Amino acid sequence: MTHNDIDELIRLFSKLPGLGPRSARRVVLHLVRQKENLMSPLAKTLESAIDTIRTCSHCGNLDTIDPCHICSDGKRDPSVICVVEELADLWAIERCNLFRGRYHVLGGTLSAIDDRGPAQLNIEPLVERSARGEVKEIILATNATLEGQTTAHYLTTRLASFNLSISRLAQGIPMGGELDYLDDGTLGAALKARLPF
Amino acid sequence: MTHNDIDELIRLFSKLPGLGPRSARRVVLHLVRQKENLMSPLAKTLESAIDTIRTCSHCGNLDTIDPCHICSDGKRDPSVICVVEELADLWAIERCNLFRGRYHVLGGTLSAIDDRGPAQLNIEPLVERSARGEVKEIILATNATLEGQTTAHYLTTRLASFNLSISRLAQGIPMGGELDYLDDGTLGAALKARLPF
Repeated sequence: MTHNDIDELIRLFSKLPGLGPRSARRVVLHLVRQKENLMSPLAKTLESAIDTIRTCSHCGNLDTIDPCHICSDGKRDPSVICVVEELADLWAIERCNLFRGRYHVLGGTLSAIDDRGPAQLNIEPLVERSARGEVKEIILATNATLEGQTTAHYLTTRLASFNLSISRLAQGIPMGGELDYLDDGTLGAALKARLPF
Repeated sequence: MTHNDIDELIRLFSKLPGLGPRSARRVVLHLVRQKENLMSPLAKTLESAIDTIRTCSHCGNLDTIDPCHICSDGKRDPSVICVVEELADLWAIERCNLFRGRYHVLGGTLSAIDDRGPAQLNIEPLVERSARGEVKEIILATNATLEGQTTAHYLTTRLASFNLSISRLAQGIPMGGELDYLDDGTLGAALKARLPF
């Protein structure tokens, strides 16, 4: 193969998460076959998104406006902030269509192994938002991993001096979960946190 | 989520083979985080590829030149044509670096179920190429599937009137294959086609 646009496209697509050289070739073939329907819109949207997408200066969300549409939505409660690790988590919570407060995207977790301290995360702006007095509740929706929980604990100490109610997501059996297939940790946590029927 | 460039990108990426809504979101997040290194080159290369990539009028290969670099390569033997179903197959054979002839891409297989007859495939140009007298051997490298083999059989009847040697790929045990894990069909075929040691 010569070094042309096809090879360059394959090389670029194979750098995307979840794609390797083989799936990248399949993607490029699919695109070339659908120039009008798919390749052309994709090229145009990518080009446009490079200019329009920006990080919300309030919460760290990505949007084409700043403040983002969540932070600038008057119908959403500014007194409740849901703190998430990554933008994907924000999207996940938005999809469940239950939360009507605002967000704060940390951009990762504290991690001793990866040498990520509080300064590398979007934590100071959260402390500033909490200090302004408008916020009444903080929901720490970090992942149920060691690093997610460590970050949540760090945040509770940082936010302890403000008069806030701090909560975290409930842990237990997932919807449709069968006890036989659950890991011991989850089952143990669900048992400890059992609720009156 | 509002309908903006981010959602549009996720929608477009989720239409690519092997990607769904979840992996498309992951891809878009990855791209937005690497605007300079990945998103921008990808947008530019896609834009450029739309204009430059064309189908070779000789063999059906995709390239930025027509005839493609294989058809216009004087060092490659024009008397041997390897017939493949799809461009991905051409790339696969090129990767094994053994074949120094030329190609013919059919663009699919005959299929009664999908109502694909000879007219829907790139077959007439192959017959014309064979009729010109320059070609001496045709290698039918269609897949070892029912449809691939049906297509190969159809081609042998179509090309029978020309003075050509027609061959097909050997079938047997794949490299590194363990007999215990092979399907009965492959093992049977390998046994029938056994070779003197």
